[in-house]
Amino acid sequence: MTEFDTLWPAILDVGRDAGSGGYRRYAWSDADLMLREWFTGCAAERGMDVEEDRNGNLWAWWMPPGWDGDPSDAFVTGSHLDSVPDGGAFDGPLGVVSAFAAVDIVRARGVVPAVPVAVVAFSDEEGARFGVACVGSQLSSGALSADRARGLRDIDGITLAEAMTKAGRCPDRLGHDPQLADRVGVFVELHVEQGRALDLLDRPIAVASAIWPHGRWEFVFRGQANHAGTTRLADRRDPMLAYASSVLSARSCAAAHDAVATFGKVLVTPNGANAIPSAIRAWLDARAADETTLTALVDRISAEAGGHAVADGIDLEVSAESITPVVHFPAAPRERLQRALAHLGDIPVLPTQAGHDAGILSALVPTAMLFVRNPTGVSHSPTEFAESVDCNRGAQALADVMADWVASR
Amino acid sequence: MTEFDTLWPAILDVGRDAGSGGYRRYAWSDADLMLREWFTGCAAERGMDVEEDRNGNLWAWWMPPGWDGDPSDAFVTGSHLDSVPDGGAFDGPLGVVSAFAAVDIVRARGVVPAVPVAVVAFSDEEGARFGVACVGSQLSSGALSADRARGLRDIDGITLAEAMTKAGRCPDRLGHDPQLADRVGVFVELHVEQGRALDLLDRPIAVASAIWPHGRWEFVFRGQANHAGTTRLADRRDPMLAYASSVLSARSCAAAHDAVATFGKVLVTPNGANAIPSAIRAWLDARAADETTLTALVDRISAEAGGHAVADGIDLEVSAESITPVVHFPAAPRERLQRALAHLGDIPVLPTQAGHDAGILSALVPTAMLFVRNPTGVSHSPTEFAESVDCNRGAQALADVMADWVASR
Repeated sequence: MTEFDTLWPAILDVGRDAGSGGYRRYAWSDADLMLREWFTGCAAERGMDVEEDRNGNLWAWWMPPGWDGDPSDAFVTGSHLDSVPDGGAFDGPLGVVSAFAAVDIVRARGVVPAVPVAVVAFSDEEGARFGVACVGSQLSSGALSADRARGLRDIDGITLAEAMTKAGRCPDRLGHDPQLADRVGVFVELHVEQGRALDLLDRPIAVASAIWPHGRWEFVFRGQANHAGTTRLADRRDPMLAYASSVLSARSCAAAHDAVATFGKVLVTPNGANAIPSAIRAWLDARAADETTLTALVDRISAEAGGHAVADGIDLEVSAESITPVVHFPAAPRERLQRALAHLGDIPVLPTQAGHDAGILSALVPTAMLFVRNPTGVSHSPTEFAESVDCNRGAQALADVMADWVASR
Repeated sequence: MTEFDTLWPAILDVGRDAGSGGYRRYAWSDADLMLREWFTGCAAERGMDVEEDRNGNLWAWWMPPGWDGDPSDAFVTGSHLDSVPDGGAFDGPLGVVSAFAAVDIVRARGVVPAVPVAVVAFSDEEGARFGVACVGSQLSSGALSADRARGLRDIDGITLAEAMTKAGRCPDRLGHDPQLADRVGVFVELHVEQGRALDLLDRPIAVASAIWPHGRWEFVFRGQANHAGTTRLADRRDPMLAYASSVLSARSCAAAHDAVATFGKVLVTPNGANAIPSAIRAWLDARAADETTLTALVDRISAEAGGHAVADGIDLEVSAESITPVVHFPAAPRERLQRALAHLGDIPVLPTQAGHDAGILSALVPTAMLFVRNPTGVSHSPTEFAESVDCNRGAQALADVMADWVASR
């Protein structure tokens, strides 16, 4: 058994839905709390002290011998443990499991670190429950205000503050972490690839060049509830029609901009089979290679949706829920990773369309990412997959990077 | 205060949502139970015995003096008390309140009935909670099997049998009511109009000619869940696109067939803002003037939806959830109503596109309907409305019909 294979199976049943086969590991749910316990257990087995910071992010520390005082300039690696609804096994946990495996591999090689090493699990990366992604890293880096975070509500109306209190945490402490910049010398996040680039290149591992700018916009189409049987077509103000036209607009505009745009979440009011809806709330996820293109794309989709609304005599409101600027990962740490992995040949350098905690932290500290091949490219789905041999290669590569970084500083 | 005005305000707060202003009076909910208590109280005040039949339908009896044995050949009037999600105040309750008001008016005139009179409130007419409409009248008339009814589930997975048991009822007793045909001499249902025909004619009251054939079809579009950011447009199997195209197909096909077709209820899986959906369940409500047209309409919509699904590489299943044949209300009771209301001039005779308990019972017993003007035509909405003067005219007309029927038999 490799270090990775020993660790990986322990969490495969946590938060898995028997019906869909997908994971429902929402922030501060029972599944999330079980994964936090598992993280703490992994750290304890390795003699690593665990700290949960004010924002619920977990840090397991491997300190250099004789290190005195607070950690600083650390090599930090990890990812997140939460999932989207019916997500896959790899998105997030692969990075955390690989981080612990890399510690084991590096220790087995007899490496003694010159700087602190931390394995981290950032809280609530997916935003599946409270609607905002990367809550833990955004709070710590100051990108998200504590007041806004505390007031975020899930579908049952429970606030993040209430959910954290129920889980025994103290939401009053949420907020910017002034020590973060000093503590982290570099953050390396290993993640399953969420597209097919490595598969098409026939390579197992890549380093990240950039994260596409992306965001989430709420579209509210308001019409008039009425009886689906008795209301003449001419008298209707049915918001479903403009919504449907907007779905098709989003697709054609995305194709025209070499971008992606998706309506994946929809709430219909009242959602009765014999009632014309009064309102449709739908969320547009849009991403493009640069910010100018993204703005043009969303402006175009909004304009077309507005035209559909006018044609159907209904009202439309569009509001930006979150917009994440482009992230260019810095050259220096990326080149250091490439050198440390030179025995693997030229490592492909790829952009990603997905947001990550590494993207959030890149505003504050040096960051880099490693991607592990996903043979189908499917992610955010129960069928998300990576070959065991590639997961082991990923953990080895992360160990190579860790050993290179911590031994020689 | 008229008889109607005295009765109407008592239930205006029951089951009303403070946010939407609409009613959420679902079968066997607390609101439904409160309305049942109100019904029982109204009957008690009038010395009418209340019977809840095996299917939860409420009957309040005014028996002729000296009548011996079970009721038979009765004049039955009423409607239902449940609502769609965020429905209006009038759809259903107007017919029940008007029925009690008509009893008061007829008694005040000194009429002594020669046949039994019943005020009825049929259970679960809208089908808002368990997905099947007219559950009470369909069970009693034998159109719905007891086994199927007991197994119907609400959105929380609670079966009708469980909901009835929780409400203290005995779902084992559900089923065909063999006495129904003998008991009911005629069923006259007064209902708020759900279109604008009376408004356009400038008349307050109509009698019904027919109910359009109508039905509900479930469309399940199955694609592949994936990451909304990282999945290339070319690699997607996004069921939202075929659903959106099908919404637009339904509208254009309905227009081409002089019919109506509506997608008003949609459930998206997993319904995450950054996830391409794996599946979309949507319900088509379709209605047309005759059965041939309805079949052609739904076949055409299904064929177009199938084409959209093939184009997007996804799967589509269409299944009929319920289909209600055309109802032609019989000429004899309708003409008797028209004669009894001759003092109002020629009463308009109108078809309706909405299903009603009177339509279900028409397979078994003589039935007729009265419609009260709805100045906007809006129904199944918090803004559903009828003028007070028209509601009073409706109750008077129902009393005229009742007095004519019961005094002279």
